[in-house]
Amino acid sequence: MTYDFTKVPDKQQIDEAAERIKKYIHHTPTLSSANLNEMFGCEMFFKCENLQKAGAFKSRGAVNAVFLLNETEIRKGVATHSSGNHAAALARAAILRNASAHIVMPENSSKVKIAAVKNYGGIITFCESNLESRESTLVKVIRETGATEIHPYNDPRIIAGQATAAKELIGDTGFLDIIMAPVGGGGLLSGTALATSYYSEKTKVIAAEPEQANDAWKSFKSKKFVPSINPDTIADGLRTSLGSWTFPIIMEHVDDILTVSEANIVKAMRLIWERMKIITEPSSAVPLAAIMQHPEVFAHQKVGIIISGGNVDFDHLPW
Amino acid sequence: MTYDFTKVPDKQQIDEAAERIKKYIHHTPTLSSANLNEMFGCEMFFKCENLQKAGAFKSRGAVNAVFLLNETEIRKGVATHSSGNHAAALARAAILRNASAHIVMPENSSKVKIAAVKNYGGIITFCESNLESRESTLVKVIRETGATEIHPYNDPRIIAGQATAAKELIGDTGFLDIIMAPVGGGGLLSGTALATSYYSEKTKVIAAEPEQANDAWKSFKSKKFVPSINPDTIADGLRTSLGSWTFPIIMEHVDDILTVSEANIVKAMRLIWERMKIITEPSSAVPLAAIMQHPEVFAHQKVGIIISGGNVDFDHLPW
Repeated sequence: MTYDFTKVPDKQQIDEAAERIKKYIHHTPTLSSANLNEMFGCEMFFKCENLQKAGAFKSRGAVNAVFLLNETEIRKGVATHSSGNHAAALARAAILRNASAHIVMPENSSKVKIAAVKNYGGIITFCESNLESRESTLVKVIRETGATEIHPYNDPRIIAGQATAAKELIGDTGFLDIIMAPVGGGGLLSGTALATSYYSEKTKVIAAEPEQANDAWKSFKSKKFVPSINPDTIADGLRTSLGSWTFPIIMEHVDDILTVSEANIVKAMRLIWERMKIITEPSSAVPLAAIMQHPEVFAHQKVGIIISGGNVDFDHLPW
Repeated sequence: MTYDFTKVPDKQQIDEAAERIKKYIHHTPTLSSANLNEMFGCEMFFKCENLQKAGAFKSRGAVNAVFLLNETEIRKGVATHSSGNHAAALARAAILRNASAHIVMPENSSKVKIAAVKNYGGIITFCESNLESRESTLVKVIRETGATEIHPYNDPRIIAGQATAAKELIGDTGFLDIIMAPVGGGGLLSGTALATSYYSEKTKVIAAEPEQANDAWKSFKSKKFVPSINPDTIADGLRTSLGSWTFPIIMEHVDDILTVSEANIVKAMRLIWERMKIITEPSSAVPLAAIMQHPEVFAHQKVGIIISGGNVDFDHLPW
């Protein structure tokens, strides 16, 4: 199978990604709560990627990217720098091809996250906790191993993989007025926006972002890339900057980005736990927080919400 | 539709219960974790009744019982004493027929549980926190209102309703070597055992109970009813005694009851949260605790586990 790495994934590439990964990922359920619908005055459909393999949508992109590598490439392994869900998802995806995953992680990463990567057999190289150290350590690892870098989000193979979550959601629910995803680096959001444009053209795409990490909102509103500098949010999956692939897709296919307070993120997270009975990480609660904070946008609408992941440290809950 | 209240539910009554309630309850998903399977050396299928309406399997029995009442009966409402999931489930079921639910609750019931009953419009009468006060208060409420008592578990209409969870599980997974349920009053367990005997005769039924509330285990082993006296377990759904309906069904159709330590209940609960990404109450973790504590019974088996509920107070987690 050939793959054009020089262009934004088209519909066929997303269909192929869905085919390619389906044996290795869950078709996750979509859940609803009559109670929450009543509380917020709209009809919500939660696509539960927290129930995905390795606990997050990241498994979709990672599996797609890993299975696009040829035999020569995969024998040298894959590599990334990540302190989050992409690291565990990539380590798991590599195992599926009996390959190595080299993960560069900051030395102050949480024990839970280090354990998750080790659990999937990832080979960890620790670095200092800053972008320069992460990047230079990754370059060194790649030079030594010949591994292929799989970026957490700024890669069309990753974006095509993440797009399959919205494809499933649309297939499972029928017409939605709005689809929501949180935005960090924009891998999930750009994939969601592409899938929506291909499979449900009339559905609006609205992203949600913490006020205290509002670089995507600033970029979107000013139409100029603004990096994420010292983001201070509990939503640890949303602290990264947009990328050269994700930003243009978001500019073209996303209808709006709404920002939310930290207090509303915690409130929304707790509501999801209480009413939906599912474990979601803070980043996953950001879209519901946006509905809470901007109810006029969602009144009487059918809203699909991608719950991005469920990897939480139960010893440090935010309440 | 007529209903014979003088005998143990037969297969047709369980089929009819499933038909009767299906518009009002969720066909809950069955989830698995490759990770937990590997950890425990067996293949587990978790039937997620924590995702059920009102957060527990109790909605099945409550809806079945409420919809079996005739118009004259239902106009006078339903009544029960319960400090737990049955109270909220019955209040919700009553709304579905525009009827009142009179709930007798001990005055020291948790705020979370009182709020759940109020949320579904239940009319609460508080009583002292002992069985005499609960029963005498309920008698008084029934005398005043003419409401029909719906017992939390010792009632064939309730047992037939609870049986539908195992019926769905068996339909969704194919052959299982073992089906597990926790045991408190025995409504879920007796329903599970009946359904298994009708729909999957060769499947064993194994119950799990806290060591510190082991009245069902004592009753089962001695073949004589032993009441629950001062049970001291975190699994608050499992503190009640068996009933005159549930005990004989359990004696006839359950293969074994295994008991578990409090430490293993907490460990199992946290494992389910971490690996399955679902919120389960302590009672729901008791079957996995039994697999943890008695691994030889489950080695290489296909095991269905009914996750009974997900109503948890997040301000008082056991770790």
